[in-house]
Amino acid sequence: MPGWLQQIKWDDKGLVPAITQDAKSGKVLMMAWMNAEALQLTLDNQRAVYWSRSRQKLWFKGEESGHVQKLVEIRVDCDADVILLQVEQIGGIACHTGRRRCFYRLLKDGQWYEDEQVIKNPAEIYQ
Amino acid sequence: MPGWLQQIKWDDKGLVPAITQDAKSGKVLMMAWMNAEALQLTLDNQRAVYWSRSRQKLWFKGEESGHVQKLVEIRVDCDADVILLQVEQIGGIACHTGRRRCFYRLLKDGQWYEDEQVIKNPAEIYQ
Repeated sequence: MPGWLQQIKWDDKGLVPAITQDAKSGKVLMMAWMNAEALQLTLDNQRAVYWSRSRQKLWFKGEESGHVQKLVEIRVDCDADVILLQVEQIGGIACHTGRRRCFYRLLKDGQWYEDEQVIKNPAEIYQ
Repeated sequence: MPGWLQQIKWDDKGLVPAITQDAKSGKVLMMAWMNAEALQLTLDNQRAVYWSRSRQKLWFKGEESGHVQKLVEIRVDCDADVILLQVEQIGGIACHTGRRRCFYRLLKDGQWYEDEQVIKNPAEIYQ
């Protein structure tokens, strides 16, 4: 494993959180998880590759939807246990619900309010 | 526990990741962890309160440094297992290293490069 990957403090499951931000708008699109292989593949393929905890396999973001995240830069935090990606979000949709980003619910008056439109019906995205 | 807190999917340790973003610059400042009490206290006190996993106690961000994070908004993601805060970062320093943000290392040519200045010496911050 190359030195830059060794310097990351993987958790007891070999994972770290990866925050993904739209390089142009600055919007935080999503957070997912990466193992060392996913992060290496992200660099090699210049697109975001995560580790799906629910499916227990590598997740090439956009493999079904086409909503690939082209890599702009990779950062790590002071404790070396969180990754921050800047990406170009192809299709302008990061969320599986068809919204621009996963953080479409805002806390207001003690309730979660959806304040982002569905850009594309998920049934059309995942055919 | 109020309904909005019950809707969050806490992990097996009762925690969720909380991403904190500067409301003005859009920079992602840090990621830490919250339990239900920390999130409720964040709302009640209108400032970021985390759960310190290393110290196993509530962490009122800025309690020692003065670098309080004033709450602007709280969001949750599609899976209800990640929180996104927008904050006003008092003092302009989020990181314990004295930098604006924790993500001060950029991957370049297979190495991590520090590309953010230390604004204030940590020895002066934590006296």
